[in-house]
Amino acid sequence: MGGLGPTEDDITREVCAEVLGRKLIFDEAAFVRIEERFRRRGRPMPVSNKKQAFVIENAAVLENQNGTAPGMWLTAGGARIALLPGPPPELRPMFEEAVWPGLELLHKGTTARRILKITGLTESDVENRISGLYPDQKNRRLTILASPGQIELHLTAFSQAHPAEAERAVERLAQDLRARLGDNIFSVSGEDLEAVVGRLLGKRKETLATAESCSGGLLAERITKIPGSSEYYLEGFITYSNRAKNSRLGVSWDVLNTFGAVSSETAEAMAAGCREKTGADYALAITGIAGPSGATLEKPVGLVYTALAREGGAEVQKNLFPGKREQVKFQSSQGALDMLRRALGPSEKAESERNGA
Amino acid sequence: MGGLGPTEDDITREVCAEVLGRKLIFDEAAFVRIEERFRRRGRPMPVSNKKQAFVIENAAVLENQNGTAPGMWLTAGGARIALLPGPPPELRPMFEEAVWPGLELLHKGTTARRILKITGLTESDVENRISGLYPDQKNRRLTILASPGQIELHLTAFSQAHPAEAERAVERLAQDLRARLGDNIFSVSGEDLEAVVGRLLGKRKETLATAESCSGGLLAERITKIPGSSEYYLEGFITYSNRAKNSRLGVSWDVLNTFGAVSSETAEAMAAGCREKTGADYALAITGIAGPSGATLEKPVGLVYTALAREGGAEVQKNLFPGKREQVKFQSSQGALDMLRRALGPSEKAESERNGA
Repeated sequence: MGGLGPTEDDITREVCAEVLGRKLIFDEAAFVRIEERFRRRGRPMPVSNKKQAFVIENAAVLENQNGTAPGMWLTAGGARIALLPGPPPELRPMFEEAVWPGLELLHKGTTARRILKITGLTESDVENRISGLYPDQKNRRLTILASPGQIELHLTAFSQAHPAEAERAVERLAQDLRARLGDNIFSVSGEDLEAVVGRLLGKRKETLATAESCSGGLLAERITKIPGSSEYYLEGFITYSNRAKNSRLGVSWDVLNTFGAVSSETAEAMAAGCREKTGADYALAITGIAGPSGATLEKPVGLVYTALAREGGAEVQKNLFPGKREQVKFQSSQGALDMLRRALGPSEKAESERNGA
Repeated sequence: MGGLGPTEDDITREVCAEVLGRKLIFDEAAFVRIEERFRRRGRPMPVSNKKQAFVIENAAVLENQNGTAPGMWLTAGGARIALLPGPPPELRPMFEEAVWPGLELLHKGTTARRILKITGLTESDVENRISGLYPDQKNRRLTILASPGQIELHLTAFSQAHPAEAERAVERLAQDLRARLGDNIFSVSGEDLEAVVGRLLGKRKETLATAESCSGGLLAERITKIPGSSEYYLEGFITYSNRAKNSRLGVSWDVLNTFGAVSSETAEAMAAGCREKTGADYALAITGIAGPSGATLEKPVGLVYTALAREGGAEVQKNLFPGKREQVKFQSSQGALDMLRRALGPSEKAESERNGA
């Protein structure tokens, strides 16, 4: 993987050909595709890109939909060799579409997988709840991946017999885990929290707006990562200064001066003001201290208030998030999204949707 | 690295002790630090965390400032073994402070490094400009790392003689590259673009506000990644809908209807309106089509207008960014930040600052 680019230090193609004792052959079709890619962007093809059109003798050329470097797939000395571009957006689709299907033919047996994603609990909380559920058989595995604000449980089951057997085994384990962890699990299909929230909003045809202080736009950024989010996301405010909190969201100077920018009262007023100004069905607000500076004795780094306003009123959560600035920002956005998820009702896809995903 | 956590699948400690034939010993001081960490967060220590206080016989305990798992440093069979926690925020400082200094004693010779960061050019552009500068000696190396919106040149020079010799060699190479690449280089010290812009704004005591459509908050998120950004960053608008562009930023319905939301005119009006509403010295605006949907024949995915408003007027750039939604968002934020960087003047730190960094 990598080293198929146009630069002088991209030498995978040449080294591989030399080691195998094969020639590099100019591939007209590959060359046309590279030229065409530059033409679509309205730029001339630099001379250096020409070398990307040379392929190893007897290799199958893999078209690159997302970049200039074609991949190659060849057999030599009883082994299969794949040459793939390094950048993940080019590598992943090529691997999944052209390489993986060819490899699966070589496997015997089936591995079934589930990823459960959890928020609102620490790694130790999760561990204590699921202790005793670790599989004792070699062909079932459970791994915990923890980061601040999100715990993932990766489940696999392997079977040499029927694919359905592996599927049943992993599903049994998943069911046991779900019984222990309840609605702290926000996804059983690998979805991120912003995708779950987006799917639920889309289904209910409801709209969302955001008002952020310490998270500085991360909440909006995550929401708008989801293709089609413009259907339900109306707009966002990043009210870093008190003046902005007052003038954009209508948080009163009285509240700001009495309770401070980092307070339950300000968070609630931000959410309520955001909902009123935008007309969204739901408004999320975040205010807190991301650090490293800005802390006081009463208000330490990591103190964050998240608020949700909806028809009928607003609710606020007080959090004390561990970690540095970046982690505090992430957990703030995660906490706010999770308030909305829980307000929107059951987050799991129906069985039929899950199987279709 | 990893496997030192409190859960049942964290077995590094136990496996390592067993392989070395050493005992695990309860370390009172480590235990007190773990308990103290939970107390500071106002939560009881789960029983499962107790096992993190057991350390391998004859190992030096490495304090973990950023998590519960202590590290260990030991010698066995002529080798040095370090057991380190997996999460990067815990791993990095412990490695840098406790492990790396011990390893450097084992090295002979010195490696000097530079990272040049570049934007506004493609990988092929960079390659064509610097061709011929690839070092032909074994002890100097130049590597290109390219991603959409940013190219990094990693330079190293190794010397067995004086550290100053390695430093001079890498600096000569850096100078040659700077002569070819000019002000497309935004950092020679590893800084991200948002850090460079923040440093320049801070030095000039000027302020910034942002108005984003297709980048959806990513620009604000990057700006507020920088500790202390509240000194110069006033606020941001994420005006996803046309209604928000009109009501928050004063973009006229006439402009929106005549030219469309994705147009040079709208970008300019967003930046100018944002500057006026917030009173910031500079306002950046972004509007475009991040994809995968929303494209038309005239306005393809990746078409993005970035605008900068400042005293005296506004400028707009039209871009056609390659890649998927996430890459288009990143390049949009990068393009906007780079317009501001170039407007703020020379971005390099003075020699004295660089050496102190």
